[in-house]
Amino acid sequence: MPLGPSEPPIPKREFSFAKGHGAHNDFIVLNDPGGWIRLTSADVVRLCRRRTGIGADGLLRAVRCTNHPEATAMADEAEWFMDYYNADGSQGAMCGNGIRVLARHLADTGQIPTGATAIATRAGVRTVHIPAGPDQDRDITVDMGHPRLSGDSGITVSAGGHQWPAVHVDMGNPHAVAFVDDLTRPGALLFPPAVTPLDAYPDGVTVEFVVTRTHRHLELRVHERGVGETRACGTGACAAVAAARQHDQNSGEETTYTVDVPGGRLRVTVGDDGSMTLGGAAVIVAQGTVWLESGR
Amino acid sequence: MPLGPSEPPIPKREFSFAKGHGAHNDFIVLNDPGGWIRLTSADVVRLCRRRTGIGADGLLRAVRCTNHPEATAMADEAEWFMDYYNADGSQGAMCGNGIRVLARHLADTGQIPTGATAIATRAGVRTVHIPAGPDQDRDITVDMGHPRLSGDSGITVSAGGHQWPAVHVDMGNPHAVAFVDDLTRPGALLFPPAVTPLDAYPDGVTVEFVVTRTHRHLELRVHERGVGETRACGTGACAAVAAARQHDQNSGEETTYTVDVPGGRLRVTVGDDGSMTLGGAAVIVAQGTVWLESGR
Repeated sequence: MPLGPSEPPIPKREFSFAKGHGAHNDFIVLNDPGGWIRLTSADVVRLCRRRTGIGADGLLRAVRCTNHPEATAMADEAEWFMDYYNADGSQGAMCGNGIRVLARHLADTGQIPTGATAIATRAGVRTVHIPAGPDQDRDITVDMGHPRLSGDSGITVSAGGHQWPAVHVDMGNPHAVAFVDDLTRPGALLFPPAVTPLDAYPDGVTVEFVVTRTHRHLELRVHERGVGETRACGTGACAAVAAARQHDQNSGEETTYTVDVPGGRLRVTVGDDGSMTLGGAAVIVAQGTVWLESGR
Repeated sequence: MPLGPSEPPIPKREFSFAKGHGAHNDFIVLNDPGGWIRLTSADVVRLCRRRTGIGADGLLRAVRCTNHPEATAMADEAEWFMDYYNADGSQGAMCGNGIRVLARHLADTGQIPTGATAIATRAGVRTVHIPAGPDQDRDITVDMGHPRLSGDSGITVSAGGHQWPAVHVDMGNPHAVAFVDDLTRPGALLFPPAVTPLDAYPDGVTVEFVVTRTHRHLELRVHERGVGETRACGTGACAAVAAARQHDQNSGEETTYTVDVPGGRLRVTVGDDGSMTLGGAAVIVAQGTVWLESGR
Protein backbone atom coordinates (compact mmCIF):
# COMPACT_ATOMS: atom_id res chain seq x y z
CA MET A 1 0.00 0.00 0.00
CA PRO A 2 1.84 3.15 -1.16
CA LEU A 3 2.00 6.11 1.14
CA GLY A 4 -0.06 9.15 0.23
CA PRO A 5 1.17 11.61 -2.39
CA SER A 6 1.47 14.37 0.21
CA GLU A 7 4.69 12.95 1.64
CA PRO A 8 7.74 14.51 -0.04
CA PRO A 9 10.33 12.27 -1.71
CA ILE A 10 13.21 11.33 0.59
CA PRO A 11 16.42 13.16 -0.37
CA LYS A 12 19.44 10.98 -1.10
CA ARG A 13 23.18 11.55 -1.06
CA GLU A 14 25.62 9.55 -3.16
CA PHE A 15 29.12 8.42 -2.21
CA SER A 16 31.72 6.43 -4.16
CA PHE A 17 33.29 3.90 -1.84
CA ALA A 18 35.71 1.03 -1.53
CA LYS A 19 35.47 -1.58 1.21
CA GLY A 20 38.36 -3.55 2.61
CA HIS A 21 39.73 -5.24 5.67
CA GLY A 22 42.90 -6.08 7.58
CA ALA A 23 42.59 -9.22 9.70
CA HIS A 24 38.79 -8.90 9.42
CA ASN A 25 38.84 -5.34 10.79
CA ASP A 26 36.77 -3.74 8.00
CA PHE A 27 36.56 -0.20 6.66
CA ILE A 28 34.76 1.94 4.15
CA VAL A 29 37.20 4.10 2.17
CA LEU A 30 35.99 7.37 0.67
CA ASN A 31 38.35 8.77 -1.96
CA ASP A 32 38.21 12.55 -1.60
CA PRO A 33 41.53 14.06 -2.74
CA GLY A 34 40.04 17.57 -2.94
CA GLY A 35 38.38 17.45 0.47
CA TRP A 36 35.03 18.20 -1.11
CA ILE A 37 32.82 15.72 0.74
CA ARG A 38 30.85 17.35 3.54
CA LEU A 39 30.82 14.34 5.81
CA THR A 40 28.78 14.51 9.00
CA SER A 41 28.98 12.19 11.96
CA ALA A 42 25.47 10.99 11.02
CA ASP A 43 26.70 10.14 7.49
CA VAL A 44 29.45 7.97 8.98
CA VAL A 45 26.98 6.16 11.23
CA ARG A 46 24.63 5.51 8.31
CA LEU A 47 27.39 4.31 5.98
CA CYS A 48 28.80 1.96 8.64
CA ARG A 49 25.45 0.37 9.54
CA ARG A 50 25.55 -3.27 8.51
CA ARG A 51 22.03 -3.72 7.12
CA THR A 52 20.95 -0.31 5.86
CA GLY A 53 24.36 1.03 4.79
CA ILE A 54 27.52 -0.65 3.52
CA GLY A 55 28.55 -1.81 6.97
CA ALA A 56 32.03 -1.51 8.51
CA ASP A 57 33.96 -1.08 11.75
CA GLY A 58 35.08 2.37 10.62
CA LEU A 59 35.40 4.85 7.79
CA LEU A 60 38.60 6.20 6.22
CA ARG A 61 38.48 9.32 4.08
CA ALA A 62 41.56 9.84 1.90
CA VAL A 63 42.17 13.59 1.50
CA ARG A 64 45.26 15.38 0.20
CA CYS A 65 46.96 17.10 3.14
CA THR A 66 46.82 20.46 1.36
CA ASN A 67 43.03 20.16 1.27
CA HIS A 68 42.29 19.26 4.90
CA PRO A 69 42.61 21.88 7.68
CA GLU A 70 43.88 19.30 10.19
CA ALA A 71 46.66 18.17 7.83
CA THR A 72 48.06 21.25 6.09
CA ALA A 73 50.89 21.43 8.66
CA MET A 74 51.97 17.92 7.60
CA ALA A 75 51.81 18.63 3.85
CA ASP A 76 55.60 18.90 3.55
CA GLU A 77 56.01 15.36 4.86
CA ALA A 78 53.01 13.53 3.41
CA GLU A 79 50.72 13.89 0.38
CA TRP A 80 47.70 12.10 1.90
CA PHE A 81 45.78 12.44 5.17
CA MET A 82 43.76 9.63 6.76
CA ASP A 83 40.56 11.24 8.07
CA TYR A 84 39.47 8.35 10.29
CA TYR A 85 36.11 7.75 11.96
CA ASN A 86 34.78 4.99 14.17
CA ALA A 87 31.46 3.35 13.27
CA ASP A 88 29.74 5.44 15.98
CA GLY A 89 30.68 8.61 14.06
CA SER A 90 33.46 9.72 16.40
CA GLN A 91 36.82 10.81 14.97
CA GLY A 92 39.84 8.59 15.56
CA ALA A 93 43.53 9.44 15.52
CA MET A 94 45.27 6.35 14.20
CA CYS A 95 44.35 2.78 13.34
CA GLY A 96 47.03 0.24 12.38
CA ASN A 97 44.68 -1.91 10.31
CA GLY A 98 42.85 1.09 8.87
CA ILE A 99 45.95 2.85 7.54
CA ARG A 100 47.05 -0.39 5.85
CA VAL A 101 43.65 -0.69 4.11
CA LEU A 102 43.82 2.99 3.12
CA ALA A 103 47.28 2.41 1.65
CA ARG A 104 46.04 -0.62 -0.29
CA HIS A 105 43.26 1.48 -1.80
CA LEU A 106 45.61 4.35 -2.74
CA ALA A 107 48.13 1.93 -4.27
CA ASP A 108 45.45 -0.09 -6.14
CA THR A 109 44.12 3.11 -7.69
CA GLY A 110 47.58 4.37 -8.65
CA GLN A 111 47.44 7.34 -6.29
CA ILE A 112 50.59 6.31 -4.38
CA PRO A 113 53.54 4.22 -5.58
CA THR A 114 54.62 0.90 -4.13
CA GLY A 115 57.49 1.02 -1.64
CA ALA A 116 57.57 3.43 1.30
CA THR A 117 55.01 6.24 1.52
CA ALA A 118 54.35 8.71 4.33
CA ILE A 119 50.68 9.15 5.31
CA ALA A 120 49.46 11.84 7.73
CA THR A 121 47.11 10.93 10.58
CA ARG A 122 45.77 12.79 13.59
CA ALA A 123 48.52 10.99 15.55
CA GLY A 124 51.23 12.32 13.23
CA VAL A 125 52.91 11.08 10.04
CA ARG A 126 53.30 7.30 9.61
CA THR A 127 55.17 5.39 6.93
CA VAL A 128 53.56 2.46 5.13
CA HIS A 129 55.45 -0.09 3.03
CA ILE A 130 53.66 -1.61 0.05
CA PRO A 131 55.38 -4.50 -1.72
CA ALA A 132 55.62 -4.24 -5.51
CA GLY A 133 54.93 -6.83 -8.17
CA PRO A 134 53.48 -10.29 -7.62
CA ASP A 135 53.21 -9.68 -3.88
CA GLN A 136 50.79 -6.84 -4.44
CA ASP A 137 47.99 -8.64 -2.62
CA ARG A 138 50.19 -9.49 0.32
CA ASP A 139 51.17 -7.78 3.52
CA ILE A 140 51.30 -4.03 3.93
CA THR A 141 53.30 -2.81 6.91
CA VAL A 142 53.09 0.44 8.84
CA ASP A 143 55.38 1.94 11.42
CA MET A 144 53.70 2.08 14.82
CA GLY A 145 56.31 4.07 16.76
CA HIS A 146 57.87 3.17 20.09
CA PRO A 147 55.93 1.47 22.88
CA ARG A 148 56.26 2.93 26.37
CA LEU A 149 56.06 0.40 29.20
CA SER A 150 55.53 0.69 32.93
CA GLY A 151 57.58 -2.03 34.61
CA ASP A 152 55.85 -3.08 37.80
CA SER A 153 52.57 -1.26 37.29
CA GLY A 154 50.62 -3.07 40.02
CA ILE A 155 47.72 -3.29 37.56
CA THR A 156 45.45 -6.34 37.47
CA VAL A 157 42.65 -7.28 35.08
CA SER A 158 39.74 -9.61 35.83
CA ALA A 159 37.34 -11.42 33.53
CA GLY A 160 35.45 -14.70 33.55
CA GLY A 161 35.98 -15.08 37.29
CA HIS A 162 39.79 -14.97 37.02
CA GLN A 163 42.36 -12.28 37.78
CA TRP A 164 45.77 -11.67 36.22
CA PRO A 165 48.58 -9.14 36.68
CA ALA A 166 48.88 -6.83 33.67
CA VAL A 167 51.64 -4.85 31.99
CA HIS A 168 50.82 -1.25 31.10
CA VAL A 169 51.83 -0.33 27.53
CA ASP A 170 51.26 3.06 25.90
CA MET A 171 51.07 2.82 22.09
CA GLY A 172 49.60 6.32 21.79
CA ASN A 173 46.55 4.73 23.40
CA PRO A 174 46.64 2.81 26.71
CA HIS A 175 46.81 -0.99 26.92
CA ALA A 176 46.79 -3.45 29.83
CA VAL A 177 48.37 -6.74 28.70
CA ALA A 178 47.73 -9.92 30.70
CA PHE A 179 49.47 -13.23 29.97
CA VAL A 180 47.10 -16.16 30.45
CA ASP A 181 47.43 -19.92 30.04
CA ASP A 182 44.18 -20.42 28.11
CA LEU A 183 42.33 -17.87 25.95
CA THR A 184 38.95 -19.33 26.93
CA ARG A 185 39.45 -18.45 30.59
CA PRO A 186 38.53 -14.75 30.27
CA GLY A 187 35.08 -15.93 29.16
CA ALA A 188 32.77 -14.15 26.73
CA LEU A 189 34.16 -10.59 27.25
CA LEU A 190 30.70 -9.11 26.84
CA PHE A 191 31.72 -6.32 29.20
CA PRO A 192 35.01 -4.48 29.73
CA PRO A 193 37.35 -6.51 31.95
CA ALA A 194 37.60 -5.10 35.47
CA VAL A 195 40.87 -3.25 36.10
CA THR A 196 42.47 -2.39 39.43
CA PRO A 197 43.42 0.04 40.81
CA LEU A 198 40.08 1.54 39.83
CA ASP A 199 41.62 4.96 39.08
CA ALA A 200 44.37 3.58 36.82
CA TYR A 201 42.51 4.39 33.58
CA PRO A 202 39.91 7.12 34.08
CA ASP A 203 39.27 7.15 30.28
CA GLY A 204 39.23 3.36 29.93
CA VAL A 205 41.85 0.97 28.59
CA THR A 206 42.17 -1.66 25.88
CA VAL A 207 42.88 -5.06 27.44
CA GLU A 208 44.81 -7.88 25.75
CA PHE A 209 44.73 -11.49 26.95
CA VAL A 210 47.82 -13.18 25.54
CA VAL A 211 49.04 -16.76 25.27
CA THR A 212 52.66 -17.45 24.30
CA ARG A 213 52.48 -20.20 21.65
CA THR A 214 56.16 -20.65 20.89
CA HIS A 215 59.18 -18.39 20.78
CA ARG A 216 58.09 -15.10 19.15
CA HIS A 217 54.62 -16.43 18.41
CA LEU A 218 51.72 -14.99 20.43
CA GLU A 219 47.98 -15.45 20.25
CA LEU A 220 45.59 -12.94 21.76
CA ARG A 221 42.07 -11.75 22.33
CA VAL A 222 41.40 -8.06 22.76
CA HIS A 223 38.69 -5.96 24.37
CA GLU A 224 38.99 -2.50 22.82
CA ARG A 225 38.23 0.58 24.85
CA GLY A 226 34.81 1.92 23.90
CA VAL A 227 34.16 -0.86 21.36
CA GLY A 228 34.15 -4.32 22.96
CA GLU A 229 35.82 -7.54 21.91
CA THR A 230 37.07 -7.22 18.33
CA ARG A 231 38.63 -9.57 15.79
CA ALA A 232 41.85 -7.58 15.46
CA CYS A 233 43.63 -4.60 16.99
CA GLY A 234 46.91 -3.34 15.53
CA THR A 235 48.07 -1.35 18.56
CA GLY A 236 47.00 -4.31 20.73
CA ALA A 237 49.25 -6.68 18.79
CA CYS A 238 52.16 -4.25 19.27
CA ALA A 239 51.40 -3.83 22.97
CA ALA A 240 51.38 -7.62 23.43
CA VAL A 241 54.78 -7.91 21.74
CA ALA A 242 56.18 -5.08 23.85
CA ALA A 243 55.04 -6.87 27.00
CA ALA A 244 56.36 -10.26 25.79
CA ARG A 245 59.78 -8.79 25.05
CA GLN A 246 60.25 -8.01 28.73
CA HIS A 247 60.81 -11.72 29.26
CA ASP A 248 62.61 -12.54 25.99
CA GLN A 249 66.30 -12.53 25.24
CA ASN A 250 66.75 -9.30 23.29
CA SER A 251 69.81 -9.36 21.12
CA GLY A 252 69.18 -5.80 19.98
CA GLU A 253 68.74 -7.00 16.41
CA GLU A 254 65.57 -6.64 14.39
CA THR A 255 63.12 -9.40 15.36
CA THR A 256 59.69 -10.34 14.07
CA TYR A 257 56.84 -11.74 16.15
CA THR A 258 53.82 -13.55 14.74
CA VAL A 259 50.61 -12.45 16.48
CA ASP A 260 47.45 -14.46 15.86
CA VAL A 261 44.24 -12.54 16.51
CA PRO A 262 40.69 -13.90 16.08
CA GLY A 263 40.51 -12.36 12.57
CA GLY A 264 43.81 -13.63 11.24
CA ARG A 265 47.58 -13.29 11.50
CA LEU A 266 49.54 -10.10 12.09
CA ARG A 267 53.29 -9.61 12.25
CA VAL A 268 55.06 -7.16 14.53
CA THR A 269 58.68 -6.37 13.76
CA VAL A 270 60.81 -4.68 16.42
CA GLY A 271 63.69 -2.66 14.98
CA ASP A 272 67.12 -2.34 16.55
CA ASP A 273 65.99 1.00 18.02
CA GLY A 274 62.91 -0.59 19.61
CA SER A 275 60.45 0.91 17.12
CA MET A 276 57.66 -1.32 15.84
CA THR A 277 56.09 -2.07 12.47
CA LEU A 278 52.79 -3.87 12.01
CA GLY A 279 52.26 -6.11 8.97
CA GLY A 280 49.48 -8.28 7.65
CA ALA A 281 47.09 -8.75 4.77
CA ALA A 282 45.18 -5.65 3.64
CA VAL A 283 42.53 -6.41 1.07
CA ILE A 284 40.02 -4.33 -0.92
CA VAL A 285 36.97 -6.54 -1.45
CA ALA A 286 34.49 -4.21 -3.15
CA GLN A 287 34.01 -0.81 -4.71
CA GLY A 288 30.98 1.04 -5.93
CA THR A 289 28.41 3.71 -5.21
CA VAL A 290 26.24 3.99 -2.10
CA TRP A 291 23.10 6.10 -1.75
CA LEU A 292 22.00 7.29 1.66
CA GLU A 293 18.56 8.51 2.48
CA SER A 294 18.85 11.32 4.99
CA GLY A 295 17.64 10.29 8.40
CA ARG A 296 17.55 6.54 7.76
CA MET B 1 56.91 -8.75 6.43
CA PRO B 2 55.93 -10.05 2.99
CA LEU B 3 55.46 -13.76 2.52
CA GLY B 4 58.04 -15.64 0.51
CA PRO B 5 57.94 -15.54 -3.30
CA SER B 6 57.21 -19.28 -3.46
CA GLU B 7 53.55 -18.82 -2.49
CA PRO B 8 51.32 -18.50 -5.56
CA PRO B 9 49.07 -15.45 -5.98
CA ILE B 10 45.55 -15.96 -4.61
CA PRO B 11 42.99 -16.29 -7.42
CA LYS B 12 40.09 -13.85 -7.36
CA ARG B 13 36.57 -13.86 -8.80
CA GLU B 14 34.66 -10.72 -9.62
CA PHE B 15 30.92 -10.08 -9.23
CA SER B 16 28.80 -7.02 -9.99
CA PHE B 17 26.36 -6.53 -7.15
CA ALA B 18 23.63 -4.36 -5.74
CA LYS B 19 22.78 -4.29 -2.04
CA GLY B 20 19.40 -3.43 -0.60
CA HIS B 21 17.00 -4.07 2.23
CA GLY B 22 13.35 -4.35 3.16
CA ALA B 23 12.66 -3.50 6.82
CA HIS B 24 16.39 -3.99 7.52
CA ASN B 25 16.36 -7.52 6.07
CA ASP B 26 19.31 -7.09 3.68
CA PHE B 27 20.30 -8.81 0.46
CA ILE B 28 23.00 -8.93 -2.16
CA VAL B 29 21.50 -8.90 -5.67
CA LEU B 30 23.46 -10.47 -8.54
CA ASN B 31 22.14 -9.49 -11.96
CA ASP B 32 22.60 -12.51 -14.20
CA PRO B 33 19.93 -12.49 -16.94
CA GLY B 34 21.78 -15.10 -18.99
CA GLY B 35 22.36 -17.47 -16.08
CA TRP B 36 26.11 -17.35 -16.69
CA ILE B 37 27.38 -17.02 -13.14
CA ARG B 38 28.62 -20.31 -11.72
CA LEU B 39 27.66 -19.62 -8.14
CA THR B 40 28.70 -22.09 -5.46
CA SER B 41 27.39 -22.34 -1.94
CA ALA B 42 30.84 -21.23 -0.78
CA ASP B 43 30.61 -18.12 -2.99
CA VAL B 44 27.31 -17.20 -1.32
CA VAL B 45 28.80 -17.65 2.15
CA ARG B 46 31.81 -15.50 1.26
CA LEU B 47 29.73 -12.74 -0.35
CA CYS B 48 27.35 -12.61 2.64
CA ARG B 49 30.09 -12.42 5.29
CA ARG B 50 29.87 -9.04 6.96
CA ARG B 51 33.57 -8.20 7.34
CA THR B 52 35.36 -10.00 4.51
CA GLY B 53 32.58 -9.88 1.89
CA ILE B 54 29.76 -7.42 1.23
CA GLY B 55 27.65 -8.75 4.06
CA ALA B 56 23.93 -9.60 3.93
CA ASP B 57 21.20 -11.86 5.31
CA GLY B 58 20.85 -13.51 1.91
CA LEU B 59 21.65 -13.41 -1.79
CA LEU B 60 19.22 -12.99 -4.70
CA ARG B 61 20.32 -13.88 -8.22
CA ALA B 62 18.09 -12.46 -10.95
CA VAL B 63 18.04 -14.89 -13.90
CA ARG B 64 15.67 -14.97 -16.89
CA CYS B 65 13.40 -18.00 -16.51
CA THR B 66 14.44 -19.31 -19.91
CA ASN B 67 18.04 -19.46 -18.69
CA HIS B 68 17.58 -21.32 -15.39
CA PRO B 69 16.77 -25.05 -15.29
CA GLU B 70 14.53 -24.67 -12.22
CA ALA B 71 12.46 -21.94 -13.91
CA THR B 72 11.98 -22.90 -17.56
CA ALA B 73 8.57 -24.42 -16.74
CA MET B 74 7.45 -21.01 -15.42
CA ALA B 75 8.78 -19.05 -18.43
CA ASP B 76 5.29 -18.62 -19.91
CA GLU B 77 4.12 -16.84 -16.76
CA ALA B 78 7.19 -14.88 -15.69
CA GLU B 79 10.28 -13.37 -17.33
CA TRP B 80 12.50 -13.42 -14.22
CA PHE B 81 13.40 -16.07 -11.66
CA MET B 82 14.54 -15.28 -8.11
CA ASP B 83 17.40 -17.70 -7.35
CA TYR B 84 17.44 -17.18 -3.58
CA TYR B 85 20.10 -18.26 -1.06
CA ASN B 86 20.39 -17.83 2.69
CA ALA B 87 23.64 -16.41 4.13
CA ASP B 88 24.71 -19.95 5.09
CA GLY B 89 24.74 -20.89 1.39
CA SER B 90 21.54 -22.95 1.45
CA GLN B 91 18.89 -22.41 -1.24
CA GLY B 92 15.60 -20.83 -0.23
CA ALA B 93 12.21 -21.01 -1.89
CA MET B 94 10.57 -17.65 -1.22
CA CYS B 95 11.29 -14.54 0.81
CA GLY B 96 8.75 -11.73 1.06
CA ASN B 97 11.34 -9.04 1.74
CA GLY B 98 13.84 -10.52 -0.70
CA ILE B 99 11.47 -10.55 -3.69
CA ARG B 100 10.56 -6.92 -3.01
CA VAL B 101 14.26 -5.94 -3.02
CA LEU B 102 14.81 -7.98 -6.21
CA ALA B 103 11.87 -6.18 -7.83
CA ARG B 104 13.27 -2.79 -6.77
CA HIS B 105 16.59 -3.64 -8.40
CA LEU B 106 14.97 -4.86 -11.64
CA ALA B 107 12.75 -1.76 -11.82
CA ASP B 108 15.61 0.65 -10.97
CA THR B 109 17.69 -0.83 -13.79
CA GLY B 110 14.82 -0.71 -16.29
CA GLN B 111 14.58 -4.48 -16.63
CA ILE B 112 10.93 -4.62 -15.53
CA PRO B 113 8.24 -1.94 -15.82
CA THR B 114 6.40 -0.33 -12.93
CA GLY B 115 2.98 -1.75 -12.14
CA ALA B 116 2.33 -5.48 -11.73
CA THR B 117 5.01 -8.00 -12.71
CA ALA B 118 5.09 -11.76 -12.23
CA ILE B 119 8.35 -13.16 -10.79
CA ALA B 120 9.10 -16.88 -10.56
CA THR B 121 10.40 -18.40 -7.32
CA ARG B 122 11.01 -21.94 -6.11
CA ALA B 123 7.63 -21.59 -4.35
CA GLY B 124 5.88 -20.69 -7.61
CA VAL B 125 5.06 -17.48 -9.46
CA ARG B 126 4.39 -14.35 -7.36
CA THR B 127 3.19 -10.94 -8.48
CA VAL B 128 4.90 -7.78 -7.29
CA HIS B 129 3.44 -4.28 -7.59
CA ILE B 130 5.84 -1.39 -8.11
CA PRO B 131 4.38 2.12 -7.90
CA ALA B 132 5.29 4.49 -10.71
CA GLY B 133 6.41 8.08 -10.62
CA PRO B 134 7.26 10.11 -7.52
CA ASP B 135 6.48 7.16 -5.26
CA GLN B 136 9.25 5.13 -6.84
CA ASP B 137 11.20 4.94 -3.60
CA ARG B 138 8.16 3.83 -1.67
CA ASP B 139 6.50 0.57 -0.90
CA ILE B 140 6.68 -2.44 -3.15
CA THR B 141 4.04 -5.10 -2.50
CA VAL B 142 4.05 -8.81 -3.26
CA ASP B 143 1.28 -11.37 -3.16
CA MET B 144 1.88 -13.92 -0.41
CA GLY B 145 -0.94 -16.36 -1.14
CA HIS B 146 -3.53 -17.70 1.28
CA PRO B 147 -2.73 -18.51 4.91
CA ARG B 148 -3.92 -21.87 6.24
CA LEU B 149 -4.85 -21.88 9.94
CA SER B 150 -5.46 -24.60 12.48
CA GLY B 151 -8.17 -23.43 14.84
CA ASP B 152 -7.61 -24.95 18.26
CA SER B 153 -4.17 -26.38 17.65
CA GLY B 154 -3.33 -27.06 21.31
CA ILE B 155 0.12 -25.64 20.61
CA THR B 156 1.95 -23.57 23.23
CA VAL B 157 5.22 -21.66 23.03
CA SER B 158 7.50 -20.77 25.94
CA ALA B 159 10.27 -18.20 26.25
CA GLY B 160 11.68 -16.00 28.99
CA GLY B 161 10.03 -18.13 31.67
CA HIS B 162 6.50 -17.56 30.29
CA GLN B 163 4.14 -19.75 28.30
CA TRP B 164 1.44 -18.77 25.80
CA PRO B 165 -1.08 -20.62 23.61
CA ALA B 166 -0.20 -20.31 19.91
CA VAL B 167 -2.08 -20.33 16.62
CA HIS B 168 -0.65 -22.53 13.88
CA VAL B 169 -0.43 -20.75 10.51
CA ASP B 170 0.98 -22.27 7.32
CA MET B 171 2.27 -19.59 4.90
CA GLY B 172 4.13 -22.17 2.81
CA ASN B 173 6.38 -22.42 5.87
CA PRO B 174 5.08 -23.15 9.40
CA HIS B 175 4.44 -20.45 12.01
CA ALA B 176 3.31 -20.53 15.64
CA VAL B 177 1.79 -17.16 16.58
CA ALA B 178 1.45 -16.19 20.25
CA PHE B 179 -0.34 -13.04 21.43
CA VAL B 180 1.42 -11.47 24.40
CA ASP B 181 0.83 -8.36 26.49
CA ASP B 182 4.42 -7.12 26.44
CA LEU B 183 7.10 -7.82 23.81
CA THR B 184 9.86 -7.78 26.44
CA ARG B 185 8.39 -10.79 28.26
CA PRO B 186 9.75 -13.45 25.86
CA GLY B 187 13.23 -12.25 26.89
CA ALA B 188 16.33 -12.26 24.71
CA LEU B 189 15.24 -15.06 22.30
CA LEU B 190 18.81 -16.31 22.06
CA PHE B 191 17.46 -19.84 21.54
CA PRO B 192 14.38 -21.16 19.73
CA PRO B 193 11.27 -20.83 21.92
CA ALA B 194 10.14 -24.14 23.35
CA VAL B 195 7.04 -25.54 21.61
CA THR B 196 4.60 -28.17 22.86
CA PRO B 197 3.58 -30.78 21.93
CA LEU B 198 7.21 -31.66 21.27
CA ASP B 199 6.37 -33.51 18.03
CA ALA B 200 4.28 -30.66 16.55
CA TYR B 201 7.10 -29.37 14.34
CA PRO B 202 9.74 -32.03 13.66
CA ASP B 203 11.47 -29.64 11.19
CA GLY B 204 11.18 -26.60 13.46
CA VAL B 205 8.87 -23.61 13.34
CA THR B 206 9.06 -19.85 13.11
CA VAL B 207 7.55 -18.25 16.21
CA GLU B 208 5.91 -14.81 16.34
CA PHE B 209 5.23 -12.93 19.59
CA VAL B 210 2.54 -10.36 18.81
CA VAL B 211 1.08 -7.38 20.64
CA THR B 212 -2.14 -5.78 19.37
CA ARG B 213 -1.46 -2.03 19.40
CA THR B 214 -4.78 -0.74 18.09
CA HIS B 215 -7.38 -2.00 15.63
CA ARG B 216 -5.49 -3.49 12.66
CA HIS B 217 -2.12 -2.43 14.04
CA LEU B 218 0.17 -5.18 15.33
CA GLU B 219 3.72 -5.17 16.62
CA LEU B 220 5.82 -8.33 16.70
CA ARG B 221 9.12 -10.00 17.35
CA VAL B 222 10.01 -13.11 15.41
CA HIS B 223 12.34 -16.07 15.92
CA GLU B 224 12.91 -17.59 12.48
CA ARG B 225 13.37 -21.31 12.10
CA GLY B 226 17.05 -22.09 11.56
CA VAL B 227 18.10 -18.43 11.81
CA GLY B 228 17.25 -16.92 15.20
CA GLU B 229 15.62 -13.63 16.11
CA THR B 230 15.55 -11.36 13.06
CA ARG B 231 14.58 -7.76 12.39
CA ALA B 232 11.84 -8.61 9.90
CA CYS B 233 10.02 -11.61 8.47
CA GLY B 234 7.49 -11.20 5.65
CA THR B 235 5.72 -14.52 6.09
CA GLY B 236 5.75 -13.90 9.85
CA ALA B 237 3.93 -10.57 9.42
CA CYS B 238 1.29 -12.34 7.30
CA ALA B 239 0.96 -15.19 9.80
CA ALA B 240 0.42 -12.68 12.63
CA VAL B 241 -2.34 -10.93 10.66
CA ALA B 242 -3.98 -14.26 9.82
CA ALA B 243 -4.04 -15.15 13.53
CA ALA B 244 -5.31 -11.67 14.53
CA ARG B 245 -8.17 -11.87 12.03
CA GLN B 246 -9.62 -14.80 13.94
CA HIS B 247 -10.69 -12.31 16.59
CA ASP B 248 -11.55 -9.34 14.35
CA GLN B 249 -14.81 -8.39 12.75
CA ASN B 250 -14.31 -9.48 9.15
CA SER B 251 -16.57 -7.64 6.77
CA GLY B 252 -15.23 -9.60 3.82
CA GLU B 253 -13.90 -6.40 2.29
CA GLU B 254 -10.21 -5.72 1.59
CA THR B 255 -8.51 -4.61 4.80
CA THR B 256 -4.97 -3.47 5.53
CA TYR B 257 -3.04 -4.16 8.73
CA THR B 258 0.04 -2.26 9.85
CA VAL B 259 2.68 -4.60 11.27
CA ASP B 260 5.65 -3.10 13.09
CA VAL B 261 8.72 -5.33 13.22
CA PRO B 262 12.06 -4.48 14.86
CA GLY B 263 13.45 -3.32 11.48
CA GLY B 264 10.57 -1.10 10.43
CA ARG B 265 6.96 -1.07 9.28
CA LEU B 266 5.28 -3.58 6.99
CA ARG B 267 1.72 -3.60 5.67
CA VAL B 268 -0.36 -6.70 5.11
CA THR B 269 -3.48 -6.35 2.98
CA VAL B 270 -6.11 -9.09 3.07
CA GLY B 271 -8.18 -9.29 -0.10
CA ASP B 272 -11.87 -10.15 -0.23
CA ASP B 273 -10.85 -13.74 -1.10
CA GLY B 274 -8.58 -13.97 1.96
CA SER B 275 -5.34 -13.75 -0.04
CA MET B 276 -2.58 -11.58 1.38
CA THR B 277 -0.17 -9.02 0.00
CA LEU B 278 2.91 -7.75 1.85
CA GLY B 279 4.06 -4.16 1.41
CA GLY B 280 6.82 -2.00 2.75
CA ALA B 281 9.89 -0.02 1.78
CA ALA B 282 12.38 -1.80 -0.49
CA VAL B 283 15.56 0.15 -0.96
CA ILE B 284 18.74 -0.33 -3.00
CA VAL B 285 21.55 1.29 -1.00
CA ALA B 286 24.67 0.43 -3.01
CA GLN B 287 25.97 -1.09 -6.20
CA GLY B 288 29.40 -1.97 -7.40
CA THR B 289 31.95 -4.71 -7.93
CA VAL B 290 33.15 -7.23 -5.36
CA TRP B 291 36.26 -9.39 -5.62
CA LEU B 292 36.45 -12.65 -3.75
CA GLU B 293 39.62 -14.51 -3.01
CA SER B 294 38.93 -18.23 -3.26
CA GLY B 295 38.97 -19.86 0.13
CA ARG B 296 38.80 -16.68 2.21
